[in-house]
Amino acid sequence: MEKTSQLTQAEKNFFMREALQEALLAREKAEVPIGAVVVLDGQIIGRGHNLRETLQQATAHAEIFAIQEACEKVGSWRLERSQLFVTLEPCVMCSGAIQLARVDEIYYGATDPKGGAAGSLLNIATDTRFNHWSYVESGILADECSQLLSSFFKELRNKKKKQKNASNLI
Amino acid sequence: MEKTSQLTQAEKNFFMREALQEALLAREKAEVPIGAVVVLDGQIIGRGHNLRETLQQATAHAEIFAIQEACEKVGSWRLERSQLFVTLEPCVMCSGAIQLARVDEIYYGATDPKGGAAGSLLNIATDTRFNHWSYVESGILADECSQLLSSFFKELRNKKKKQKNASNLI
Repeated sequence: MEKTSQLTQAEKNFFMREALQEALLAREKAEVPIGAVVVLDGQIIGRGHNLRETLQQATAHAEIFAIQEACEKVGSWRLERSQLFVTLEPCVMCSGAIQLARVDEIYYGATDPKGGAAGSLLNIATDTRFNHWSYVESGILADECSQLLSSFFKELRNKKKKQKNASNLI
Repeated sequence: MEKTSQLTQAEKNFFMREALQEALLAREKAEVPIGAVVVLDGQIIGRGHNLRETLQQATAHAEIFAIQEACEKVGSWRLERSQLFVTLEPCVMCSGAIQLARVDEIYYGATDPKGGAAGSLLNIATDTRFNHWSYVESGILADECSQLLSSFFKELRNKKKKQKNASNLI
């Protein structure tokens, strides 16, 4: 059965802005700014942002925290009828977690051509050989999501360049 | 570069028995019996077993716990040079987590034709489009790993049948 979106464009933008707020929290901690929220019946039931460097945990992605908080909230590992919003295309791990949690709709902002598993390198969510699949929509507030990432990496490069120049002066 | 195994058959069997011990802990909690360990320099640095029903968490797979414990132990999200042993072929989420943690070698027991992502439906670990890939070997103590799963599901079916018969008598 073909999956369809249950949300209006205004709702999609609204919830992606919430995911962007989470991404800003990651940036404040000098983490790659990626944020996610899980929505059920119009309510945010899980939020998360990237904390890989802070926690030194390979699994510390925005979507994982959002899904875990959502499961805790509903008291079940099944998040049927839910929507997940994330500022960057989910990786393999997060696409798998979304599948396991039976999230129905995935919305993301920027695409990730190097590691994306929701359309770029793979499309886990629409692979009907698995026992759950989801509606996937990309490009929600894509410019804002991309801009946040590119400015973060630009600042990082400038910082490294300054450090290098400073060490050359010693 | 082609990845190769750094372990002897005796070592592979030894560590898979440890993963099987974890799987037994899952069975004691009425969870699908799946267990995993992460090994570095001949030492187990992370252990885990399936706790999906107990915790009602979609992400509560054996490999996730083993990887998280291993990251905590080494104080880094990078588990380079490590090996992961798991009694059942990893799913998409766990294959992604293994990739993110840069685990070098994956050993599993039973194959999972319905959801396996390390050779069955997908082979994430050997997809060289991603920035990390791993050596993968299946069939380590395959009979014991499969047997543990099939006896668990057989008992579950019998239990359900008994419950159905009992309710028919009321």
